[in-house]
Amino acid sequence: MARRHEHHERTSADATDRLRLARAEGVGPVAYRRLIARYGSAAAALDALPRLASAGGRASAPSVPTVDETERELHDIERRGARALFFGELGYPPLLALLDDAPAAITVLGDLSALTDRSVALVGGRNASANGQRVAENLAAELAHNLVVVSGLARGIDAAAHTGALLAGRTVAAVAGGLDVPYPPEHADLQRRIAEAGAVVTEAPLGTAPQARHFPRRNRIIAGLALGVIVVEAALRSGSLITARIAQDAGRELFAVPGSPLDPRSRGANDLIRQGAHLTETAQDVLDNLPDHPTRQGLARDPLFARENPGLSEAATDWEEPPENPLDLPRARSQVIELLGTSPTAVDEVVRRCQFSAAAVMAVLLELELAGRIETLPGSQVALLPEPGF
Amino acid sequence: MARRHEHHERTSADATDRLRLARAEGVGPVAYRRLIARYGSAAAALDALPRLASAGGRASAPSVPTVDETERELHDIERRGARALFFGELGYPPLLALLDDAPAAITVLGDLSALTDRSVALVGGRNASANGQRVAENLAAELAHNLVVVSGLARGIDAAAHTGALLAGRTVAAVAGGLDVPYPPEHADLQRRIAEAGAVVTEAPLGTAPQARHFPRRNRIIAGLALGVIVVEAALRSGSLITARIAQDAGRELFAVPGSPLDPRSRGANDLIRQGAHLTETAQDVLDNLPDHPTRQGLARDPLFARENPGLSEAATDWEEPPENPLDLPRARSQVIELLGTSPTAVDEVVRRCQFSAAAVMAVLLELELAGRIETLPGSQVALLPEPGF
Repeated sequence: MARRHEHHERTSADATDRLRLARAEGVGPVAYRRLIARYGSAAAALDALPRLASAGGRASAPSVPTVDETERELHDIERRGARALFFGELGYPPLLALLDDAPAAITVLGDLSALTDRSVALVGGRNASANGQRVAENLAAELAHNLVVVSGLARGIDAAAHTGALLAGRTVAAVAGGLDVPYPPEHADLQRRIAEAGAVVTEAPLGTAPQARHFPRRNRIIAGLALGVIVVEAALRSGSLITARIAQDAGRELFAVPGSPLDPRSRGANDLIRQGAHLTETAQDVLDNLPDHPTRQGLARDPLFARENPGLSEAATDWEEPPENPLDLPRARSQVIELLGTSPTAVDEVVRRCQFSAAAVMAVLLELELAGRIETLPGSQVALLPEPGF
Repeated sequence: MARRHEHHERTSADATDRLRLARAEGVGPVAYRRLIARYGSAAAALDALPRLASAGGRASAPSVPTVDETERELHDIERRGARALFFGELGYPPLLALLDDAPAAITVLGDLSALTDRSVALVGGRNASANGQRVAENLAAELAHNLVVVSGLARGIDAAAHTGALLAGRTVAAVAGGLDVPYPPEHADLQRRIAEAGAVVTEAPLGTAPQARHFPRRNRIIAGLALGVIVVEAALRSGSLITARIAQDAGRELFAVPGSPLDPRSRGANDLIRQGAHLTETAQDVLDNLPDHPTRQGLARDPLFARENPGLSEAATDWEEPPENPLDLPRARSQVIELLGTSPTAVDEVVRRCQFSAAAVMAVLLELELAGRIETLPGSQVALLPEPGF
């Protein structure tokens, strides 16, 4: 049996359990998905959580929001006209679900179909030139006739993309903070208009003021929602290039608008073209090259979640089954820890070097993550966290 | 026996004969080369000229400059400190000689080694932006540390390329008119400085004021001299794109500097990148991708002069030998004429469709060209000329 996809109408209690699990201490997107796959439901996963974390070496049980707190959060989301969507549910954006670290829970304000229709992301620098903003606005306006235009509500290129798209069609803003905390504050009205004509989506709970660490996670949602990403004016080492890299890893098409070598704001976009992104001057350049589905190459880079990966053993795709001999887990655990370091290691590599089955390794990694001893990184990599002294 | 390369010291009489042949009516670069190959010397080719033209259907003998006129031209060239170089001679730029329509004769003012050392061409629009000119000047200055920088002495990007290169090294100007008619006139001083630090080269006789039809021929010299061509700011359908196409056909590497989609002056350069030219921001982008030799692909596009083309019959490479049965030539001639039209046809195609040998077809084509009835075009194509009524 390969991984189970659970598309069913949720009960209100199930929504509460899913949100509690998603918000539980130590439960990242990957652990969420593993727990649901292994235990069959959020309720069962919540029951198992203290035991797993303790097995991973954690002294106290991970903190989990209470049923009351969580019902209040769900009620607040509904009261604002928004909706919570969970990974594995019908209605969850199918392209976003293909990311190996797709968010466990997102909240959406606006038209849910904007998250599932054919879309392209348009991103770029905050300190954009007037020309860059004009290019972004024009491109977005043309593209919005055919596609949903996704961006990040930031100053500069993002704002120009949303503004252009609003002239002609629908646009989606993926934001880093809570739906009720528009950022930057002067884009509150823009966010309202986007929600009316398209949708605003976030992984953050209501009330969250966005912090630096939220933005790369926001970027993966932008990349994950779209079939392709267009970069306009991105300096080297800018956030837009992170979005582009995530998009490429996920098999999405890359587009970049060229600029003069004299403008450092175009270095990143030019570099993407050098690396194979489609040189983009007009909407037609995008329409001509946007595929109907993400490419296999992108998906294949993530061996654990690839559906068809001939190099992968049966055991590795069946990791959610309990390991054959539970008594060996303590030995497997110490062996896995020895193989890990504070710099990222591919999970595949750990499975290959460990004498235990892939199932055992995956079980150990889940426990270690819930115990706060390792961190799961994009691209199926794991790294030891500095020991907090327990 | 494949094509003969004749590298020998010329006698003064041979130079006179070669220049007379090069300047003879109806003798283009391709006919020049065929005649020398077939008759062994310029003198013998001059002797055969009237008979060949007559066989091709021409009533009067083609006009040929007298020995006196030609000696005077050679003397004038020397008096200006310049030198005439002929195709097939030692000292003729070897990369230029690889073009299928390499000039029969060029005159050069300055350092001959600038025409044979490793070089790159930098070309672009005349109505260039200030930024474009700055990019060209900076690039040329950096490249001139390692390479000779070739350009066309035009206003805008060309002038910036020469100026930049002069700051750090050598540069070559390929010009459309005579060496004594600098064009545009305000670049007379620039031409003088280029000749002092590098070389100025032209196919035109002294005293020639450049006309529109000379510029594409000048462009092929720019492309032919260099291992690669860099395009900075070229609008669609501009002369720089002609240079780029010739360069690509000749297996030279293509580079282009990107620009904003808002500036129509960058459309051509961006389009070249889309088609595979190296996106170029710095000199390093050029140095990293400039090969040591033109690529085989480029040379192979010209089936007649390719040295290794498995698809080509022995006969076609041996076309300079007289055809096996001279009596058949009139019938071959009428068959070839029937196969041709006023739009270009590949010579290879004519050879394939004709029942006569490749040698017979080539002999007929040479006669027809000398008679002014056909035109030989780049890429080994031929087209009927409108009949002047003879």
